[in-house]
Order: sequence, then structure tokens, then C-alpha cells
Amino acid sequence: MKNKVARDIPDNILKQMTRKPFNGVTYGHPIAQRVAPKVRATTGRDKVLSSIDEVVAKTVADGMTISFHHHFREGDYVFNQVMRSIIDQGYHNLTLAPSSLTNVMNDIVVEAIKKGVVTNITSSGMRGSLGDAVSHGLLENPVVFRSHGNRARAIEQGEIKIDVAFLGVPNSDNAGNANGMDGDAAFGSLGYALIDAQYADTLVLVTDNIKAYPNTPASIKQTQVDYIVKVDAVGDPEKIGSGATRFTKDPKELKIAKTVNDVIINSVYFKEGFSFQTGSGGAALAVTRFLRQAMINNQIKASFALGGITKPTIDLLNEGLVARVMDVQDFDKGAAESMKDNRQQQEIDASWYADPANKGAMVDQLDVAILSALEIDTQFNVNVMSGSDGIIRGAIGGHQDAATAKLTIISAPLVRGRIATIVPNVTTVITPGDSIDVVVTEIGIAINPKRQDLIEQLSHVPGLPIYTIEALQQKAEKIVGQAKPLVFTDRVVAVAEYRDGTVIDVIKAVKD
Amino acid sequence: MKNKVARDIPDNILKQMTRKPFNGVTYGHPIAQRVAPKVRATTGRDKVLSSIDEVVAKTVADGMTISFHHHFREGDYVFNQVMRSIIDQGYHNLTLAPSSLTNVMNDIVVEAIKKGVVTNITSSGMRGSLGDAVSHGLLENPVVFRSHGNRARAIEQGEIKIDVAFLGVPNSDNAGNANGMDGDAAFGSLGYALIDAQYADTLVLVTDNIKAYPNTPASIKQTQVDYIVKVDAVGDPEKIGSGATRFTKDPKELKIAKTVNDVIINSVYFKEGFSFQTGSGGAALAVTRFLRQAMINNQIKASFALGGITKPTIDLLNEGLVARVMDVQDFDKGAAESMKDNRQQQEIDASWYADPANKGAMVDQLDVAILSALEIDTQFNVNVMSGSDGIIRGAIGGHQDAATAKLTIISAPLVRGRIATIVPNVTTVITPGDSIDVVVTEIGIAINPKRQDLIEQLSHVPGLPIYTIEALQQKAEKIVGQAKPLVFTDRVVAVAEYRDGTVIDVIKAVKD
Repeated sequence: MKNKVARDIPDNILKQMTRKPFNGVTYGHPIAQRVAPKVRATTGRDKVLSSIDEVVAKTVADGMTISFHHHFREGDYVFNQVMRSIIDQGYHNLTLAPSSLTNVMNDIVVEAIKKGVVTNITSSGMRGSLGDAVSHGLLENPVVFRSHGNRARAIEQGEIKIDVAFLGVPNSDNAGNANGMDGDAAFGSLGYALIDAQYADTLVLVTDNIKAYPNTPASIKQTQVDYIVKVDAVGDPEKIGSGATRFTKDPKELKIAKTVNDVIINSVYFKEGFSFQTGSGGAALAVTRFLRQAMINNQIKASFALGGITKPTIDLLNEGLVARVMDVQDFDKGAAESMKDNRQQQEIDASWYADPANKGAMVDQLDVAILSALEIDTQFNVNVMSGSDGIIRGAIGGHQDAATAKLTIISAPLVRGRIATIVPNVTTVITPGDSIDVVVTEIGIAINPKRQDLIEQLSHVPGLPIYTIEALQQKAEKIVGQAKPLVFTDRVVAVAEYRDGTVIDVIKAVKD
Repeated sequence: MKNKVARDIPDNILKQMTRKPFNGVTYGHPIAQRVAPKVRATTGRDKVLSSIDEVVAKTVADGMTISFHHHFREGDYVFNQVMRSIIDQGYHNLTLAPSSLTNVMNDIVVEAIKKGVVTNITSSGMRGSLGDAVSHGLLENPVVFRSHGNRARAIEQGEIKIDVAFLGVPNSDNAGNANGMDGDAAFGSLGYALIDAQYADTLVLVTDNIKAYPNTPASIKQTQVDYIVKVDAVGDPEKIGSGATRFTKDPKELKIAKTVNDVIINSVYFKEGFSFQTGSGGAALAVTRFLRQAMINNQIKASFALGGITKPTIDLLNEGLVARVMDVQDFDKGAAESMKDNRQQQEIDASWYADPANKGAMVDQLDVAILSALEIDTQFNVNVMSGSDGIIRGAIGGHQDAATAKLTIISAPLVRGRIATIVPNVTTVITPGDSIDVVVTEIGIAINPKRQDLIEQLSHVPGLPIYTIEALQQKAEKIVGQAKPLVFTDRVVAVAEYRDGTVIDVIKAVKD
């Protein structure tokens, strides 16, 4: 059956996974019954256990769903310690439901799959050896990819039922009051993990830093925590930040960033009280810097900045150019450290950030979102999941969620090396073209024809060449030539959900 | 059937209300399935309605359970406006489930009962014309009295299912991000109301102060809010504080406060890192002042102060004598105003404060609790609910909850006017004697014989006369004589639950 973005979703997958095909970006106002955890009263019981082996033995059983967060990113020490213990203790048939999987987690997950320890995975994304293995059919059941907002929705509505959550934290007291703001491995907002803390039947905190009771501010509360395990270190501070801490000097990236800024400031959305999400990476930091100058020049202040937060955004907050930072994740140390002392930097959970089924998420209020892409096609559909070789090497993240902004901009080079970014048809549709407004490349922009208003607003801006998306695609093709079509088997190895839980695309095993 | 505190609980009440009789203060470690609300997705919908009539018409239906909070105390303008609209629109058979009922709410609830609008009530307590009417049998179904912790437990476990919560707030943005810390009618912690916000199917905020979006810190979050109504005023700032803002000059109260302090500082619990809850009223403020001096003299600092918070406790925080204030409710303006700027003054919800069924409440960690009483009997059972005339004029509040402290002190005068406070048998058992350790009066103290350790610790303190509780009772009787036994009918008008949901006592209609 073809869904609304013309992707063929096999009937047996829809039936077997009881999903509906993607049918459009509008969520509407349905009523849903939320679920709730089973809670064991723990009055008077000591929660602190001496080892990960002990807590795994106490909490895990075959067939369970276990979860982790990815706030430590490439500096994570917790995931490997817990998974090692789970594998060595010989559990089977687990469903792995982390907020996402970072590269440091790949090899042990591959091992867990090979040994039958993990038989199902849902995640925001995957890369490296794990993405490669899954794309080659290692996991029998299809992986389910969900955006951050959709994961929150799925947990709140019982589609993901977490039996045990193992959450690493840079501090906790002996009752479980914890936050991400303080300690050697501080990462700032606990945004994604707060959903696990609220909905898991059993919650295990892993920390290297036991603080005096009561430890506040308590993002995770003692009322949610069953066990606490003290380890030597939960993360590598050097690798928790995402790397890019200064804006790019690459002329192509700078050109794109400047053009993104031109699009924003010439749109009707650039006015007093506007809001934006820029994301991470050197180009995003450059956009933030250009935007800052434009705000100063035009005496315009923003009501809030949203999403994964970086130090340059915190600087805007401290300068008074942004009234609030709504913070589901911090991408660098500067952003992580400032949260503790700044009440205008509000920690938000993944549901508040982006669940379409709640009583209004932050993304619904967003004026401008700047997003990246591996591929964009002439329908404006975006792929952030599969590489030019068809292998899984990406993550949905908040891409589908933030694309609900009034002005959604995809910032991407026309080509990367010998690979076109703008293509006739993306390998995997993750974010539907209906929610994308402008594509910005180094040579100019394309505006979704649905947005005649934007075409009018931007058509007379000096130095802002506007192309059709087809023209951009042809220019890319002229540079790198036509790509050889990828060859897949019929076997579905992953299902990509849209943020409402419908199936927007499937990923099939690659043919070697 | 007689329960564990020897109260006769009629079988038909237990059967009809599917309750068990109170069977002891130990909660144990049972597992309970929590419940969750039905949530309507509201993306893109305007939440702000123009009048209370409109929101009542949109949300209320016959037979529903509606809730309110009592953080505005005697300055509340919200309850009367909403109830007036509900009565005038002619709804019937509602269950009223506020966190408590203050005196300004009495008359309209009586009217609502008379008109069949309200047919069931659960509350922490009631007083005045309402207590009088209920004690005379106005309401057909028994009122259910619950402590703050028990109300949280009952909501979390589905025993109270809130259809619509009407929560007054001193500020909110147009999406529902709100707190109690800011605005003309600021009251500080939203502690009790946070449970309603989390569990009600429909949440209505009533405010007089619409702030720019996004309004932070957000104690109540936009993800929880269906409607917002703007009114002229939500409360009278002069009446939100509980009155007593300076410590008593009454020599008898001062004597009691000094003795309470002597008990604390001569117990083993008075040491570095101890914790305490003092409560409100002039005598409690005096205890806090004595305790402050003792902490300075002995170079002892407390880890936390808990409960309803007053300015003198905030002063201890600012002086560094207390590391954290865990704040479920603020009793005066000084405490309410400081929360905004002090991250060591942590807002906690009623579940975190005191739910015995969660993964550890604050009260479980409490060293010292100072509580009041209308009556204490020779079994150390405490009555804070019914007057010497048998009429309902009190509230459980956090009494049962905080009494789980390691050292629970009842501070009360031996007699009040011509009425004994220490009696052979309390009219209504609210807090079982098993959880009471010391009774402090102006002439001396009585120690629960279960606590031989305390008797040893306190028996050689100069100027601290120790009596048996029977001796204190006889001294009181000598002063005021024997009270005439109260005469009740057989009709049960109210059921008092213990914090675990069992029935600790019933209140019967008075005989005129």
C-alpha cells in the first residue's frame, strides 16, 4: 500500500506491527488514554546497591523492555557497563528502547543481537557497525525508528512499555533525587530521560557522584527511583559535548549560514517575540551568530530558543536577545553548565518539547526551525536516516517534530563530495515535504510551491537566488552525475514512523 | 468491627465504601498500578476562554468529580466564582474533591449540597457552616477525609478520579505554563495542586495575570492544561498568608515552644544534617526561633526543613543553617516570594511530600515533626478534626503523614479555656498513638512508653518535667472537670482515612 508520501509500505508489515500508513502531517485533536507505571512502595528501604551486576540481577528478566538515554553522547560509560552485565548474565529476548544510540554503543548492541539477548530495537537512530549490521539483516524483527516527540507519545500511550530504565546521571542523592546540571559528567538537560523516569516500572540510576540528601534541583525525583548504583565514572566529560564549539570557517558552510539568515530575516516571522530552533554543528553556530547581529541591528528580541542548546544560544539569553531557552538537550559544556544558575533556561522533557498528542508541545509554537538533511528530493521530502549506499547511518532526532515550525528551513550543501544532496527521490522519507518550506544551499534556495506567501516575501531580496527544487536537483546532478540506483532485498529491516506513530517509510536490507 | 485503634467501624460502611479498617502504621512495600488521565491533543487550538461560565459549560457534566486547591487559603476568589457558575448552570450529583476547604468556601458548598449540585465530598478537612451542616447530616453520603499524602495516593491509584480540575494561579501564559511564585496573588508552592494538574482529565487554569509565552519556571506545564480563563482577581493578597508572621508573646505558648525545643535538642536526632517540619502559627514560629539559636550555639546545620513553610524557615535557609527547604506549601508572603529566586527552596508535590505508596516520600526521611492537636488521649491518639461539641471543625492536613517522623512531637496546651486537650479518649482518632512520640504541654511532657529510648534521653534534662500521659490527663481533668459525654446518632456523616486508605475512624451526626 502506498502512503501519503508515495512510499510502498508492505501490508504484512502494517498488519504484523499493527500500524497505519502515514496519511498527512495534521494531528488533529484526538483523545488518548495515557498509561501509567506499576510502582512499588519503598518507604524505609535502602536503594543504593553496590554493583551493576547486582541491580541487573534484581531487575531484569527475559522478554523485558529496557531503556537508556543518550545525553552522554559519545562520552557514555553507562550503556556499555549495563549491557555487558546483561549479556554476561545470559538474558534473552529483550527489547532495547533507548532515546537514541550513539557510536560508542554500536559494537555491544551487535554482540547482544548475535547472542539473542536483544531481539527488538526502537531508537531515534543508529550508525556505524550497528547500522551496518541491521542493514545487512542481522536483527530478525524490524527496528522501529521514532522521533523524540513520537517516542514520548509512544511511551505515554503504552506503545513502548519500559520495564526497566537504566539512567546515567552526573549526580544523585541516596534516595534518587538527581539532575544533569552538576558533576564531572554534567550534560545539562535530562529532557529525553525524564519520560523514562516517569513511565518505567523500575528505575535504576547509575551515578559516580552521591550528593547529600536532599539533592536539588531534582529533575528526577526520589519518588520515581527504585535503585541507585555508584560506579567510578558515568561519562567522559571531553566527549559529552558534540564537538563544534566555534562557528565554521568553511566558506561553503558560511555561505549557507548567511543565506539561512537572509531567509529568516526577510520573512514575516522575523519580528519582536519570534522563536527559533537552530540545532548543533558549526553551521548552526554560524546561523546563530548571524541571527544575533540581525536581532541587534533590527532591535528585535526573541521570545524563546528551543531544542538542543549550544553556548552561543545561552549567550543570546544572557544578552537579553532571547527571553527564554527551552532546553531538552545541551550540545556543549557551556550550555550544560549555565542551566544550574539560570531559571530562564527551562529544562523541558521530550513530551513538552514535541509530543503531538499532548495538550500543546513547544514545537507547535515554533516560528523558525533550521534543520539538516542527508538527502532532499524534489517533493521536499527529507532523509536523515540512510546513506547514499542505503545503509542506516542517521537519526530522526527532533527532525519531524521541529519541521512543524511556521518556517522550516533545510540547510544543506548541493552536493557532498561525489554525492548529490538534492535528488529526484530520497532513499528513505523521514520528514514529509509538506512540512518543509525552504531548502538553502550554497548556490541559492528553493521554496516549497505550497508556500506562495514565502515566495513573495523572499523574491526581491538582493543576493538571494531562488530556484525551483527541480533546478537545484539538476544542478547537483550536473556536478556529480546520476547516481546508480541502490539495490535492496525485499526484507524490511527497519520501519520509520512519523511522529504520530504511522509508517512513513520502511528500510530494506541492502544487497551485497 | 473494631480497628487497630479500637474504633468501631460499622461493617456496612466498610462494605459500601469498599474500605478496610485501619490495621497499623506500617505501609510495607506493595506494588500498585498507577492510573493516568485521558488527554486531548490540543495542537493549534486557542486555550483562552473569556468567562468562567463558558469554561464550566464546556467541561462539566452531571456526576463528575471536580477539584480545586486551597493554596489561596482565606483569600481564595476562584472557588466561589466557579461553584457559583456550576450551581447557576444547574449541574447535579458532583463529587467535590479539593485539596482542602477553607472558610471562604463554606457557605457556597452548603448551598450546593442543598440544591443537589454536590452529593459527595472528599477533603483534608472542613470548618464553620459547612462542618456544622455536615455534622448535622446535610450530606447524604459520608464525607471522606484524607491527609495530603493520602489524597495524592488516592489520585495516583485511581480512588479519586478527577474529571475537571479548576486551579487558580497568580500567573499563566496563554498555553498554560504557570507557577505560584509571581503576581499579585502569589502563594509560592503549588504543591497540592500539582497532583491535580498531572491526573485530571481536563485542567482549567483561572488566572488574573496572563504573562508572555513561554512563562517559566513552569510548575504547571502547558502539556497539562486544556483551558485558561482570565478573571479580574484570583485572590486577596492580604488573606493568602496564614496570619501569624511573628512569634507569639503569649507566655504559655512560649513555654510550650521552649519545651519543644528542649525535647528536640536533647534527643539523639539533634545532630549535623538533621531535618524537621515545624508547621505554622505563632507557636511554631517561636519553635523555629529557639531552634535557630540552638543550632548556632551547637554549630549544627540541618539538611532540610519540610512542609508548610514560613519566612523564619527561609531565614534559616538564607543564613546557611538549613541546606534545603522542601516546600509543598507556603504559609506567608515572605516564604512565597523567596521561592522564585532560590533554587534551594525546592517546590515539591503532595506525592513527593507524603504519599506512602510512592518510591519514598520526604516524610519518610524526616527526623523531627512538630504537630498540633485538638485532643490527645491516653493512648496518644490525636484528634485534629472534631471539636469538643463533636462537630467537624478541622483538617487532617499533613498530620498523619508527618507523624511518621523519627521524633513526632505534639505541642498543645493542657487545657483550652474550659476544655481539656488531654483526654481519656479522643472524639475522633485521626493520627494513631503509635506514631506519636512526645506530647509537650506548658507544665511538662509525656513520652510514649513505646519509646523507652526517648525516656532515657530526656529523663535527666534540667527543667523538663516528664509525666505519664495519664498524669497529664488527670491534671487537665482537675482543672476543667470531667467533660459531659457527647451524644451522637448512629448515622455516619464522615469517614476519616488513615494515609494508606484504611478507615481509622468515622464521625457520626450530632444529636441536637
